Amino acid sequence: MAAVEFIKDLCTPALIIDLDKAKRNAEGMLERFHKLGVQLRPHMKTHKTLECADIMTGGSRRCIVVSTLAEASFYADNGYDDILYAYPLPFDKVERCAELSERLSLFHVVVDNRLALQELKKRPLKQGKVWKVWMKLDCDNGRAGVPHCDPAALQLALEIWDTSGVELTGIYAHCGNTYACQGEEQIKAVAQETTTVVLQFMEKLKAAGIQGVKSSIGSTPSCSHPVPDIAMLSEVHPGNYIFYDVQQSLIGSCRLEDVAVRVLTRVIGHYPHRNQLLVDCGWTALSHDGGGRLPTGYAIIEGHPELKLLSMTQEHGRVEPISGKLDFKQFPLGSLLTLMPYHACATAMMHPVYFVHSKGKIIDTWKPTRGW
Amino acid sequence: MAAVEFIKDLCTPALIIDLDKAKRNAEGMLERFHKLGVQLRPHMKTHKTLECADIMTGGSRRCIVVSTLAEASFYADNGYDDILYAYPLPFDKVERCAELSERLSLFHVVVDNRLALQELKKRPLKQGKVWKVWMKLDCDNGRAGVPHCDPAALQLALEIWDTSGVELTGIYAHCGNTYACQGEEQIKAVAQETTTVVLQFMEKLKAAGIQGVKSSIGSTPSCSHPVPDIAMLSEVHPGNYIFYDVQQSLIGSCRLEDVAVRVLTRVIGHYPHRNQLLVDCGWTALSHDGGGRLPTGYAIIEGHPELKLLSMTQEHGRVEPISGKLDFKQFPLGSLLTLMPYHACATAMMHPVYFVHSKGKIIDTWKPTRGW
Repeated sequence: MAAVEFIKDLCTPALIIDLDKAKRNAEGMLERFHKLGVQLRPHMKTHKTLECADIMTGGSRRCIVVSTLAEASFYADNGYDDILYAYPLPFDKVERCAELSERLSLFHVVVDNRLALQELKKRPLKQGKVWKVWMKLDCDNGRAGVPHCDPAALQLALEIWDTSGVELTGIYAHCGNTYACQGEEQIKAVAQETTTVVLQFMEKLKAAGIQGVKSSIGSTPSCSHPVPDIAMLSEVHPGNYIFYDVQQSLIGSCRLEDVAVRVLTRVIGHYPHRNQLLVDCGWTALSHDGGGRLPTGYAIIEGHPELKLLSMTQEHGRVEPISGKLDFKQFPLGSLLTLMPYHACATAMMHPVYFVHSKGKIIDTWKPTRGW
Repeated sequence: MAAVEFIKDLCTPALIIDLDKAKRNAEGMLERFHKLGVQLRPHMKTHKTLECADIMTGGSRRCIVVSTLAEASFYADNGYDDILYAYPLPFDKVERCAELSERLSLFHVVVDNRLALQELKKRPLKQGKVWKVWMKLDCDNGRAGVPHCDPAALQLALEIWDTSGVELTGIYAHCGNTYACQGEEQIKAVAQETTTVVLQFMEKLKAAGIQGVKSSIGSTPSCSHPVPDIAMLSEVHPGNYIFYDVQQSLIGSCRLEDVAVRVLTRVIGHYPHRNQLLVDCGWTALSHDGGGRLPTGYAIIEGHPELKLLSMTQEHGRVEPISGKLDFKQFPLGSLLTLMPYHACATAMMHPVYFVHSKGKIIDTWKPTRGW
């Protein structure tokens, strides 16, 4: 495909990123936590590109979080260091984690159980290195982590602390339960609870004689509206905020105008007998995330609050008015529509290339890494 | 990652394909339509690999259907020809379609409206070639196509027929409405209806003096249980059958034991306080397709009908028993579980590489094409 100058000339479907908005989102987060004196360790899972990583780290190429070892290797291969693999240590990937630990200045792993610690002990690092281990604490999010109220949490931390060849680097919590919030007040309540629970756990560690251990919480909602106590933590690790999305605007993390990512699509069919348009965006370009539960269906069609993306198949999307008759003349065959995705992480995942623009002019293409 | 010999040694999540089953599914379809004297033109959208295409075409590398121009170019670049781009002609891609038409012996496009025909007329093909055009007929599927009962259908066919530089090659219908069926009887009823409608339309064409036009219907359900009248059509174009999936087994296209694709995943966490396991398969490895509506959630966990894949985030899956207490000893950390996907097309789409095995021994890796 020949290079094109403007987004309006792109073949569709295409993922487009508004660079000015993405930079503003990233710089806002950097500034917010710089002021609070907390290390921002941005998560790469949403975009998985070098370019976004550079923007999110302010060019330092240090101190990031990844969700897969494919991401870890990709960033390591491109000059990144101080990489935290925020995933319950998978036993099939210990050797790959060991290699990254030996190769990088800082590579961190996460454990939430004793068997994982045994796996690390079975594979001592070379070159006098020690495993950098964050213990995952479940602060009522209900995914990975030792429940904060379980005595096993402190026991595991003590065991990591006491294990030779292994360092208890930090306590890691993901406040994914902020995703059930609506509005700043609810977000702050969950963020406060997570922060308090982590700080209380840090106190328990101190009381047990454990010092110098870091603490980190994260999620885009909680880091978009930090509570004052968050300043008492060492780090935060949000990720989605570089793009934001419709979901984040509904949670209250951002305004709709902050969303930096869109799927560009074209009208490919008029079907007046069923009052519908077809567009060339199916689930291969948007994902099924959100389940179509928005009043506007699977996405927001920018500038057209009267339309609904009703359903998708692999390469087709059905669009119809929320009520009344569709004025087909407004949407000629071949004309563009712009979809604001429900969940940017899920939508970005579907694209092998992102088109980056400033005010509609294409200035770059970014290629994400994929796989595990 | 070092090459591994057996699927049990793969890093997870991983998409695995049982080559013996895939071959059996493909050979069954080839044989079925060979006997009926109908040309099988298999659809590539499910897998998007050269290797599956070779199996589905019986090695001929001719006569395929694609859903994107990225697929068309990928197959054309690899020696395939006679490619049908089964998509309502997108106006931003006319030039790319023209180039493929000029380059290949046979490249077919699909139109369902007069403006698309105008677009083709604006770009006459070089080298004395003509556009090979299939008109899409909507036989009550309700996606693309001119409604079969609309007089516009015959008018458009006549107009294509009368346009110089353009050939009315065929009439194309997708019986996607078979996906709402349960059981062979219902599938056959829809397949019969679609076949009848297409055959009636062919009669109308003949009555209008139009001869030598092909006809094609498709969908994996209808082609897995063909009605006798299907033998009166020129071609069929199913695709999913190479893999099949849980959805196809529920529709009645196949038995569960015919499903050739799995996602391999490992247990990464035990959470007895909430009676749940975590596995390393999130929506990046399975997709959200199906919406978790199976009694077993988002997939079937092979050999464990008592378990449910309750929910997924990007890289995590929550598994719990359908009822009662989970026996965690049965599922040690690091142990493998095998997920049968709800929709193979959506699951395959999430993977940059497929691991191909015969009786658990890895014999190949296949790389699909992506993008548009």
